[in-house]
Amino acid sequence: SPKPIYRSSFTHFSVCVCVCVCVCVCVCLGSNYAMSNGGGGAGASISTHLLDLLEEPIPGVGTYDDFHTIDWVREKCKDRERHRKINSKKKESAWEFTKSLYDAWSGWLVVTLTGLASGALAGVIDIVADWLNDLKEGVCLSAMWFNHEQCCWDSNETTFAERDKCPQWKTWAELILGQAEGPGSYIMNYFMFTFWALSFAFLAVSLVKVFAPYACGSGIPEIKTILSGFIIRGYLGKWTLMIKTITLVLAVASGLSLGKEGPLVHVACCCGNIFSYLFPKYSKNEAKKREVLSAASAAGVSVAFGAPIGGVLFSLEEVSYYFPLKTLWRSFFAALVAAFVLRSINPFGNSRLVLFYVEYHTPWYLFELFPFILLGVFGGLWGAFFIRANIAWCRRRKSTRFGKYPVLEVITVAAITAIVAFPNPYTRQNTSELIKELFTDCGPLESSQLCQYRSQMNGSQAYPAGSDAAAAPGVYSAMWQLSLALVFKIIMTIFTFGLKVPSGLFIPSMAIGAIAGRIVGIAVEQLAYYHHDWFLFREWCEVGADCITPGLYAMVGAAACLGGVTRMTVSLVVIVFELTGGLEYIVPLMAAVMTSKWVGDAFGREGIYEAHIRLNGYPFLDAKEEFTHTTLAREVMRPRRNDPPLAVLTQDDMTLAELQNIISQTSCNGFPVIVSKESQRLVGFALRRDITIAIENARRKQEGIMLNSWVYFTQHAPTLPADSPRPLKLRSILDMSPFTVTDHTPMEIVVDIFRKLGLRQCLVTHNGRLLGIITKKDILRHMAQMANQDPESIMFN
Amino acid sequence: SPKPIYRSSFTHFSVCVCVCVCVCVCVCLGSNYAMSNGGGGAGASISTHLLDLLEEPIPGVGTYDDFHTIDWVREKCKDRERHRKINSKKKESAWEFTKSLYDAWSGWLVVTLTGLASGALAGVIDIVADWLNDLKEGVCLSAMWFNHEQCCWDSNETTFAERDKCPQWKTWAELILGQAEGPGSYIMNYFMFTFWALSFAFLAVSLVKVFAPYACGSGIPEIKTILSGFIIRGYLGKWTLMIKTITLVLAVASGLSLGKEGPLVHVACCCGNIFSYLFPKYSKNEAKKREVLSAASAAGVSVAFGAPIGGVLFSLEEVSYYFPLKTLWRSFFAALVAAFVLRSINPFGNSRLVLFYVEYHTPWYLFELFPFILLGVFGGLWGAFFIRANIAWCRRRKSTRFGKYPVLEVITVAAITAIVAFPNPYTRQNTSELIKELFTDCGPLESSQLCQYRSQMNGSQAYPAGSDAAAAPGVYSAMWQLSLALVFKIIMTIFTFGLKVPSGLFIPSMAIGAIAGRIVGIAVEQLAYYHHDWFLFREWCEVGADCITPGLYAMVGAAACLGGVTRMTVSLVVIVFELTGGLEYIVPLMAAVMTSKWVGDAFGREGIYEAHIRLNGYPFLDAKEEFTHTTLAREVMRPRRNDPPLAVLTQDDMTLAELQNIISQTSCNGFPVIVSKESQRLVGFALRRDITIAIENARRKQEGIMLNSWVYFTQHAPTLPADSPRPLKLRSILDMSPFTVTDHTPMEIVVDIFRKLGLRQCLVTHNGRLLGIITKKDILRHMAQMANQDPESIMFN
Repeated sequence: SPKPIYRSSFTHFSVCVCVCVCVCVCVCLGSNYAMSNGGGGAGASISTHLLDLLEEPIPGVGTYDDFHTIDWVREKCKDRERHRKINSKKKESAWEFTKSLYDAWSGWLVVTLTGLASGALAGVIDIVADWLNDLKEGVCLSAMWFNHEQCCWDSNETTFAERDKCPQWKTWAELILGQAEGPGSYIMNYFMFTFWALSFAFLAVSLVKVFAPYACGSGIPEIKTILSGFIIRGYLGKWTLMIKTITLVLAVASGLSLGKEGPLVHVACCCGNIFSYLFPKYSKNEAKKREVLSAASAAGVSVAFGAPIGGVLFSLEEVSYYFPLKTLWRSFFAALVAAFVLRSINPFGNSRLVLFYVEYHTPWYLFELFPFILLGVFGGLWGAFFIRANIAWCRRRKSTRFGKYPVLEVITVAAITAIVAFPNPYTRQNTSELIKELFTDCGPLESSQLCQYRSQMNGSQAYPAGSDAAAAPGVYSAMWQLSLALVFKIIMTIFTFGLKVPSGLFIPSMAIGAIAGRIVGIAVEQLAYYHHDWFLFREWCEVGADCITPGLYAMVGAAACLGGVTRMTVSLVVIVFELTGGLEYIVPLMAAVMTSKWVGDAFGREGIYEAHIRLNGYPFLDAKEEFTHTTLAREVMRPRRNDPPLAVLTQDDMTLAELQNIISQTSCNGFPVIVSKESQRLVGFALRRDITIAIENARRKQEGIMLNSWVYFTQHAPTLPADSPRPLKLRSILDMSPFTVTDHTPMEIVVDIFRKLGLRQCLVTHNGRLLGIITKKDILRHMAQMANQDPESIMFN
Repeated sequence: SPKPIYRSSFTHFSVCVCVCVCVCVCVCLGSNYAMSNGGGGAGASISTHLLDLLEEPIPGVGTYDDFHTIDWVREKCKDRERHRKINSKKKESAWEFTKSLYDAWSGWLVVTLTGLASGALAGVIDIVADWLNDLKEGVCLSAMWFNHEQCCWDSNETTFAERDKCPQWKTWAELILGQAEGPGSYIMNYFMFTFWALSFAFLAVSLVKVFAPYACGSGIPEIKTILSGFIIRGYLGKWTLMIKTITLVLAVASGLSLGKEGPLVHVACCCGNIFSYLFPKYSKNEAKKREVLSAASAAGVSVAFGAPIGGVLFSLEEVSYYFPLKTLWRSFFAALVAAFVLRSINPFGNSRLVLFYVEYHTPWYLFELFPFILLGVFGGLWGAFFIRANIAWCRRRKSTRFGKYPVLEVITVAAITAIVAFPNPYTRQNTSELIKELFTDCGPLESSQLCQYRSQMNGSQAYPAGSDAAAAPGVYSAMWQLSLALVFKIIMTIFTFGLKVPSGLFIPSMAIGAIAGRIVGIAVEQLAYYHHDWFLFREWCEVGADCITPGLYAMVGAAACLGGVTRMTVSLVVIVFELTGGLEYIVPLMAAVMTSKWVGDAFGREGIYEAHIRLNGYPFLDAKEEFTHTTLAREVMRPRRNDPPLAVLTQDDMTLAELQNIISQTSCNGFPVIVSKESQRLVGFALRRDITIAIENARRKQEGIMLNSWVYFTQHAPTLPADSPRPLKLRSILDMSPFTVTDHTPMEIVVDIFRKLGLRQCLVTHNGRLLGIITKKDILRHMAQMANQDPESIMFN
């Protein structure tokens, strides 16, 4: 009986509330701490020690502008430098030793906090979304804060078969009109359903629009970009977290064709980012912070699907860019912590992490691989179609006037969804519950329409457990309704993903796959029942025994469709494997996911997230995509053949005025420093931002800096005329180990170097002489050009 | 009843034999193909296209010497070039299209074949080792080829409790002396046990010594080195495979304190290497071949532990060096195929992949974390102690005369093991079976001594299922025997790992941990029984209910000890998780493994495999170890301050005699090519092996090449005096995109570049002028020096 579980759920509810309070306190602490450190998103002022240990660091040097790319190599050096400093100091005093211990443990602390917060938030979101969703249908009179299921658990008056009907639960028609049946009450329920859906949708989109525009969408494309080394200030901030959590609940409850799984990853990453402000090791280093974010995304998937191992693999395969083994271990820990917090909150009342956990009891047979592969083909086709259609629609929204009315758009889509969804029971119910119903096998206790089989004994409509049977009319009408639901979900999902509300894609994709899978499964089952003398079925299916599991087909279909859309592989199989727990169902899953990926890739190699990254013009250098062209570095570098020469600085014969002139006349992010114009031999590289900050700093602090002051990057000042003003030494901001490649280097190697080392730019030389520069943007534009796409779509540096 | 399973096992035995025959045929085919291609281990002569597309390739250029390091960047370029060639040709004819399809599918084919072969071999090894192991005790009269268990399954005369005693099975004493009991027969059994153990050990070490010296040890250190980009010819060849498979069975059966899990990874990698010869894509490219080997090692662990996901993570975390996502997916596939082949062979007759699959039914409680963490501490201490002791012993063996008599050593160790092991039932039995017994929880059907508890009802010695109870004398005597077995295993394992027979470390480590864990578990259980009013136990343990699961302690202990020795983290937890299948036991495992890693790391950061790699002086640049020193590239590069200048070539003013002179006077593996001695500006890099091959090739094919011929690396020949002989153009072997760093580059960045890009060497410049060179060996020596180790221990290039 489910009651004890339900009670333990609410015993644990207090735990949940406590955790949430703690989380909120920590979040506030964290962000206040960040504020007091002047923090927004980027690292602060430790370093440049790396560059020159003798000079005093200039505040601000080594930080990044918004919408710019970080330099992984430099960030890692900064971190090692910091680590060395702490290590050398730790024997000085007990305080320093404590600080070094805090530093050493901060990695574990931050992932633990992130896991706790993600688990708690996921639990709260699950519970509140469930309640709001049921609010569309009615209200629990005995206790307003109970959802439909909880309301009826307390009732002793109903039988098990009618467990969702109880006197405490009143539909709106019963409450307002006082009658439960009849066309009037149907219309009243219809109206209230639509009304609540529209209210939730309106509230969600308004909150997003007013408070945190970054809270919309699934967030995974942006997180991928951020993890690849890009700065988007505020994308993972506390406002985004708060608004995304609230609007996610509203969006899910509004009945739009979207899921909460993708946004949960965003929520978890926000937690990770906010907690990292408690630890200077992470708050002041963009590369280290991304390790926390990788762990956070694993925790997000872990709570979204109840799959800790799958979450880690998702983070590794799909989201993360740079994933050292230390991070793997910590991500695993974060994922586990999050999963256990969620489990102790027990939002579904079944001691499981997800609503759609299933156990199958019959094996699968080899001939079933054929329908499984067919489902894979369907998944691949759906994925390819969805990506094209959704991107075309989003591009249209971006380029036309239409995108200027996001609230109107959301309300329109929500209204259409609610109006069309209500009459069909499979679209009216929560999508997660639909998936659960489709995954679950028919048993003797199952009262669903999908399980109305004719008993073989007496022709009655009870389903006999443990054997195939002929479908009763209930199944046929369910098939019709499911087909209509399939078409509806396909159309609505295309228009929903990309709306200005939090919207995940996993659940709608899985629902589409599960519907298709269940339909195929029932078809095969009936085929096996009516044609059990075919040699295929004769071999494997004994008459009267259970042979085909339609629930398994639904699960395989869900995996195939999700694979087609996201092009995930291992992580997807492991996530779904963790839902069933049976190793033997991996083979069908793998066959379907593999097929769906191949079919999808035949129409275009990008998954939906990469497509959205490209749509937004983020500078994302995909580690999965192979660069296969034969171009050389000299063909990609700037300056091109007819361009003006490269803006360079010389190491010791420029005045401040000349330097400022060069800076103001060009828009490059950095300048190579050479020995002299004649020799063109490379000395180092100086970033525009660092030069500007250093000049301002010198103007403020050093006296005698004038426009005709000499600027030098060498160790010692050049010999100057007697009357010249005090020179300005800029060696401390000079990167004396810039990456260089020769002009003959094939671009495939250059791309590899950029990917693996996380470079921002690379200088090109020929026989030791500086020729040009290649930036990440140049590479992305070149790749876009090679793929016959518009190179101008790459917008950021 | 186990009978049907047993029968299905032997129904499937035919399947197994078929698979094996196929495997052998393929292996022969594969190796013949390899021979006819002149293959040994290294890639062949496709490339250099990369270097200069206009020149004809010189055969042999681009291959590697034995015991040398490969250049990952160049190998990957070669592969892309090959891919482009096939792609451009594929529209020419149907044949070319078929070839391109074959090429595209070869990755999946090779991992499928590898999975099939690994699974089949693992099954055969399991079955034969079991049989040989039982041969030490006796023989099945009804059918010689049955082991003890199988022999008695056919018997109808015994009760379930006495299921291992049946008339068909005769101990040697029964056979020879005709009596089963008494001191005479005990001595006879003792003698035969020792005799067989010595025979197996002698056979194993002789076969290894005569036929395949590479077949000894676990193989994992060497495989790690090979995967990091090192060539050891024949290490993964067909002789090694054959001899390792045979001697592994013998070594396991001889009763030595070793396991088959590590060697199974080696066997799987041999399969992968041999099958890769069927596919030119893999046989001719060292980098691509290593992708197959990564997948093969995943398959090896998958069959060793029945953990496909754990296998993939093991390959990712522990073995592989370069692990792109494509490889992840294929490794997963290979691991699954291998697991399913092994399962259909069903070697243990329990439909499981491993002997020690367990299911626990009781949860764990929070206070149990304390003993779990204690077990973690024990595991860490054991790991640190084992690594030091074993390495010291191996070093002694290497450096003294003692190492020259491997056969004698093996026989001595085997004799001591057999003589000491026989009297104690826990050391006499197969180590895997011991682990299984320790992992398994006591139930009503368990007849083991470990499960003799006093029933609470009537004081009899039956164990009441589902509740804690007082231990009966059987448990106490078992505890004594287990303690002795623990000491014995600890001592013998130190001397066994490193013998010249195939020897894995997983099973002995797990056995030690399982013994310690079970002892702790029983102690806690009895504590809880006798002191159930302590507040800890009062809170959680109801009187009469089952509270403590000693089997879980054994499992946690096994994981902790394995973690202490290998320093694995995620993969270890996932492997053990896959043995139990319950997500909730991950937390104890994780706590123990984490503690054991931290405790172990406090005594030295190296795992046993890294320690053996260092002992053997292999050039392995560990991706996990952080380089934390502040040295700069100029301090590490050669030439050092007082060294003679760097041997360089000039691009167009050397004669052949001068070039040969430089080559013969130096031992470097390559030479930088510069514009001229005066400018020192870098043009490119030429490998010694390539130069030698190119000169020989030119002598053979081109006329008029004399000692005073000019050698040039430029595009066009330099203007020469009228009477000079025909010049030799060497541009095709010149690498025009050598990697360079500046002399100011911190070594941490240089080490990062070497690791991530897989470089062999890197040139050092200052302001565009060539200063020196850093090779992988230089880096490893520098790191050894920094860690106060002997830099001369790095032996290979």
